[in-house]
Amino acid sequence: MRTTSRDIRTANRYRVLRQAIADSPASRPRLAEATGLSPATVATLVGELLDQRMLVDAGFEDSGGGRPRGLLAVNPEGGALIGVDVAETYVHVEVVDLTLRTLARAHEELYPRDHAPAALVRRIGGAVRAATAGAATRGPLLGAGISMPGMVDREGGVSVYAANWGWHDVPLLDLLSGEVPSPLYLDNPMRACLVAELWFGAASGHEDAVVVNLGTGVGAGLALGGALHRGASNSAGEWGHTQLVLDGRPCHCGRHGCVESYVGAPGIMRTLREIDAGSPLLSEEDQTATVDRLARAHGAGDPVAARVFAETGGYLGAALADLVNLLDPEVIILTGWVARALGTPLLDEARAAVARHALSRPLESTEIVLSPIRVNPVSLGAATFALEGALASVGRGRR
Amino acid sequence: MRTTSRDIRTANRYRVLRQAIADSPASRPRLAEATGLSPATVATLVGELLDQRMLVDAGFEDSGGGRPRGLLAVNPEGGALIGVDVAETYVHVEVVDLTLRTLARAHEELYPRDHAPAALVRRIGGAVRAATAGAATRGPLLGAGISMPGMVDREGGVSVYAANWGWHDVPLLDLLSGEVPSPLYLDNPMRACLVAELWFGAASGHEDAVVVNLGTGVGAGLALGGALHRGASNSAGEWGHTQLVLDGRPCHCGRHGCVESYVGAPGIMRTLREIDAGSPLLSEEDQTATVDRLARAHGAGDPVAARVFAETGGYLGAALADLVNLLDPEVIILTGWVARALGTPLLDEARAAVARHALSRPLESTEIVLSPIRVNPVSLGAATFALEGALASVGRGRR
Repeated sequence: MRTTSRDIRTANRYRVLRQAIADSPASRPRLAEATGLSPATVATLVGELLDQRMLVDAGFEDSGGGRPRGLLAVNPEGGALIGVDVAETYVHVEVVDLTLRTLARAHEELYPRDHAPAALVRRIGGAVRAATAGAATRGPLLGAGISMPGMVDREGGVSVYAANWGWHDVPLLDLLSGEVPSPLYLDNPMRACLVAELWFGAASGHEDAVVVNLGTGVGAGLALGGALHRGASNSAGEWGHTQLVLDGRPCHCGRHGCVESYVGAPGIMRTLREIDAGSPLLSEEDQTATVDRLARAHGAGDPVAARVFAETGGYLGAALADLVNLLDPEVIILTGWVARALGTPLLDEARAAVARHALSRPLESTEIVLSPIRVNPVSLGAATFALEGALASVGRGRR
Repeated sequence: MRTTSRDIRTANRYRVLRQAIADSPASRPRLAEATGLSPATVATLVGELLDQRMLVDAGFEDSGGGRPRGLLAVNPEGGALIGVDVAETYVHVEVVDLTLRTLARAHEELYPRDHAPAALVRRIGGAVRAATAGAATRGPLLGAGISMPGMVDREGGVSVYAANWGWHDVPLLDLLSGEVPSPLYLDNPMRACLVAELWFGAASGHEDAVVVNLGTGVGAGLALGGALHRGASNSAGEWGHTQLVLDGRPCHCGRHGCVESYVGAPGIMRTLREIDAGSPLLSEEDQTATVDRLARAHGAGDPVAARVFAETGGYLGAALADLVNLLDPEVIILTGWVARALGTPLLDEARAAVARHALSRPLESTEIVLSPIRVNPVSLGAATFALEGALASVGRGRR
């Protein structure tokens, strides 16, 4: 796919609105300075966003005696967005306004009986209705984004492959029409987290960012040159299945030594088992409980937990250093439930290991941080797919 | 840096001329189809390139009775380009026309006495004069590109750091003005190889390509979304210093287990030494001789050479699989003197190992090939910096 002038205008519209969200209220000169766009371009784009009522005038800046500069704010009544995180065990829905305030949410558990496409579509529709019924929206509904695990064809709106449910080529968006307000957008959780960071998190204002997701599985979302890098088959970002130890631990993907088999939750449990097979921290059937206990034990000074943090941070840092050396990003952002649970102590161990493994020049230009996003980032990112869709269609006669 | 409309026009100009080079003579509809650009955009860009005399009319296509379509060819008299490959032990200059025919070349050895900036500048100037004196150029000289090892600041034209010569912050392009015809462009060999592949090699027509350089050192050039990915500190592509074996072989960078320490020439020599310490193939002080002997011995059925190829191909394939899984490129191109010397037998071993290590979906969409470029690809790429510079300045009143 070639980049067109329309793509550029859309990308610039993203930049202006992202900056306005990060920095509201802001003057036009401030937006021009922060985005690197020309004052004329910013004036045009701000005009469009005012017409769409996504931005509103917000008084004047104290200019210390000069000509007063008009301020622009993101309009909380400019539209509502629905973000749906469909995971293997739950559906989580957030309804947000353009300031990213949550207007309503719904969270429903999924059971094996919900796993057929028709049943899941009904459960998603029900969760969305439950959330929107409680939402006090005063602006237009701009659309809904759906994040689905597995492999998705976002252009066609198809769930190409979802291993845990045995799905192949399910035309999900077609099935959902009527159940969920349109327009609808589909992508995977990794891409949702990346987009959430670009708009509302630690990647905001950066052109080259990597979002690393640490959970049961492990992956990376790549934003390079300000745009998502999707790859030839839309499957870029499988950092979890790059090699950390040649011929190392077996990975559930069938190979050996993958990053995921060391820093995913089951890998961390294996490290704990190797250090102390009978550890009371270990709950064989419950990853979440084990990881939470590790975090608490580390906080309480437990030496076994300290060793697990040191070894896991060492593996994580070595693997992050590969991203630093290969991609030289401005920022690497750790997200996912394992990153949230193990937090700053894991980050500190990982940073020390990155410093041992990375080359000095790209190391100096790369920050490594925890995601600052507090709500469910996958739902937030899914809602952002709908926001991006609305911005892409500005000027095409659609609201 | 933000992408501007001017950048897009320049990138589209690159695409049209690249396609015309690959496919000369070609009609406007053929160029539109192959580049994915609109007929109107192609007509405008072709008009500019005709005005510049980079393209010329080349008769009409046999249209089987319909309206005849005009054909366009790259103009061999449209301009000459100078490409300079400054390596640690030599300066190699190619003077090429727009069809990439070599008009003249010069190759001069460098000695320790040439390593001070002033001395090297004189040697480069001498080599360029030697080459251009023999060149039968009939068009304008469009500029010269210089490839320098180490770290370069291409915008400022500065050699930031060249380890082997002890250079720090040498303003190379300023020193060369007067010695070499301007405009002058500077970048590193990895970027030169990548640009050569994009314009004239196996990356032509692709948006996502990785060029892997195998020599004494090892690195990768990344073309993502049709543009070079440079990274936050212009040092992306250090694939040679990503981890292949945690805590593995010591690497000359001071770390352990780097890809380079397995698949660079010294790494291959170490593998040979581990298999047969007293091998007659081994010439401790001469990497080139050892690699050439390995290639010949492998061709003659030598079992030690076969083991070295199998082990090196296994390491290389595991490391290439990381690029496949992380970046999901359309093509990976092997270049550099080690890749040329070991050729198809190494590629075959590497492909088999990639198939063992890569995930099936990105694997299916990625080709792995040897560079088809037969001249010095670094000089060719450096000449292409000048061609890109000339195309970027079309419409700015410069020729």
